[in-house]
Amino acid sequence: MIALLRTLMGVSVVGGLVVVVLWSENQMAVKTPAHIHFHAHARDSPENSPLPSLISIGKEVVTRKPTTATAAANVAELTRLSQTLMLVPNLHWLVVEDAVSPTRRVLTFLDTCTVPHTYLLGTASRKYKGANKPRGVSNRNAGLQWLKGHAKDGVVYFADDDNTYDYRIFNEIRSTRQVSMFPVGLVTRLGVSSPIVSNGKLVGFYDGWVAGRKFPVDMAGFAVNFRFYLQRNGPMMPYNVGFEEDGFLKALKINPEDIEPLADNCTKILVWHTRTVKSMPALKMPEKERVTKTNLHYLKEQIVFQMSHGLS
Amino acid sequence: MIALLRTLMGVSVVGGLVVVVLWSENQMAVKTPAHIHFHAHARDSPENSPLPSLISIGKEVVTRKPTTATAAANVAELTRLSQTLMLVPNLHWLVVEDAVSPTRRVLTFLDTCTVPHTYLLGTASRKYKGANKPRGVSNRNAGLQWLKGHAKDGVVYFADDDNTYDYRIFNEIRSTRQVSMFPVGLVTRLGVSSPIVSNGKLVGFYDGWVAGRKFPVDMAGFAVNFRFYLQRNGPMMPYNVGFEEDGFLKALKINPEDIEPLADNCTKILVWHTRTVKSMPALKMPEKERVTKTNLHYLKEQIVFQMSHGLS
Repeated sequence: MIALLRTLMGVSVVGGLVVVVLWSENQMAVKTPAHIHFHAHARDSPENSPLPSLISIGKEVVTRKPTTATAAANVAELTRLSQTLMLVPNLHWLVVEDAVSPTRRVLTFLDTCTVPHTYLLGTASRKYKGANKPRGVSNRNAGLQWLKGHAKDGVVYFADDDNTYDYRIFNEIRSTRQVSMFPVGLVTRLGVSSPIVSNGKLVGFYDGWVAGRKFPVDMAGFAVNFRFYLQRNGPMMPYNVGFEEDGFLKALKINPEDIEPLADNCTKILVWHTRTVKSMPALKMPEKERVTKTNLHYLKEQIVFQMSHGLS
Repeated sequence: MIALLRTLMGVSVVGGLVVVVLWSENQMAVKTPAHIHFHAHARDSPENSPLPSLISIGKEVVTRKPTTATAAANVAELTRLSQTLMLVPNLHWLVVEDAVSPTRRVLTFLDTCTVPHTYLLGTASRKYKGANKPRGVSNRNAGLQWLKGHAKDGVVYFADDDNTYDYRIFNEIRSTRQVSMFPVGLVTRLGVSSPIVSNGKLVGFYDGWVAGRKFPVDMAGFAVNFRFYLQRNGPMMPYNVGFEEDGFLKALKINPEDIEPLADNCTKILVWHTRTVKSMPALKMPEKERVTKTNLHYLKEQIVFQMSHGLS
């Protein structure tokens, strides 16, 4: 991680909106040297995006033992999210992967991705295990750390790549002065997690899991002005399962009444916590001529396989 | 259905690309009179879209007894799909719902949808039940029937609203002269369904479920030129579970060797058969002042509820 950041130090400061997608995948990793990788994406570096605003999007990373099944849906999810981000002007996407080395399928995807982006590794420490392992924290913190070296202002937003975003939420987020909040659909048995707003002011929270949190909100339900974040000494996300959002927001030393409600005073759902059904790893293609000498040879590279199987 | 089509007869012929999303939802239906409904969307009728091409997208509809859980994810999926379609010029979207009357949440979504679209009802007959009920057929056929009255050419494509589409596939589809095909990812245990292509010609199929089909392909894996379709007497999709694609393609009287391979000779996956995890219906919001006198009152309208529950 440190070596990778050093490679990027030459990149100029981001003036505005940056998106971090906190991405995790440990499968199919290829040992691409870091400098080659970053070179490949330098054309999309913040230098080429004048005055972007600042957004951070985080991927809820896979469990401690990620399966190839999870990896299989990743390119589809990245494709879908990138197409939403294509509709948003002045946006920079930080794709942060929880992997020890860059992942081939992610690099291949980014090669033709037209959304201005930067790719980072945010590898999780091995000290957290099982249910105690906070998911996505290392990615988000790697994104925040990178922003501290490259951005002065803008708005940061953490999002998962399987969530659904109405692209209009990004335009709303842009106005965030300190911390803004808005409803997230399809969360817990309540179907929605939202601030409760009365007369334009936040007066409480409607969330299926309160658990003594000061800010019972979903990771996808708030955005932070980056200049304000720096003024509050730029805290990292805590490694505390279930309390990541709360710990981060408390560290920003804000009061609930200061929160800026978006989405028409939190009356509209513009973000949904959708999840993609994880398919099983595919059965392997046989080494027949029909595979090796046809288009199937190329498709093989795009599939996550488990074991060998006969051609039907 | 007949009455609704009659209402639409005044709409002028579509010149080009039309998308039909075959959509199904029986929940939350409101008794909106048909003429009011179609009036609301007349501004986006084909008349206002000069020379669109023609595409048809179909939703794999819900089971015989749709649950509110299915309905809950629908607006998120429609949002996501519409944002992909926003990237495609000259496209018309037919949203066809398997419902006896228009569904409020779909109408609300379409109110602000900027993709040129037409909304239809394609209610399934009650004679098919359980496992024998073909899903999405009534929707797709309603779309085809409508197109016969309104379109002369273009390209028709059937797609599900939970699939993932790389928007570039729609530009490829545009070139279809008769029937084109391309790989679909995340289908069956093989991880992909694709024509096998050798020297630019289709020589076979790689699909996890062949079952004696002449065309073992996924619904999302082919597109049809509408002029060619009309020349072949415009067949409907058969009510034959598992054999809808095969029956439809056979009725077009094409040979596998005539099929036009897209996506760089079927070497790229640009469509994925993703599925969204269906969440449980939400617990009902209590009738407290915090709900009735705050923003929660408006969010209530956007959630699919099951039963009453206390506010946390």
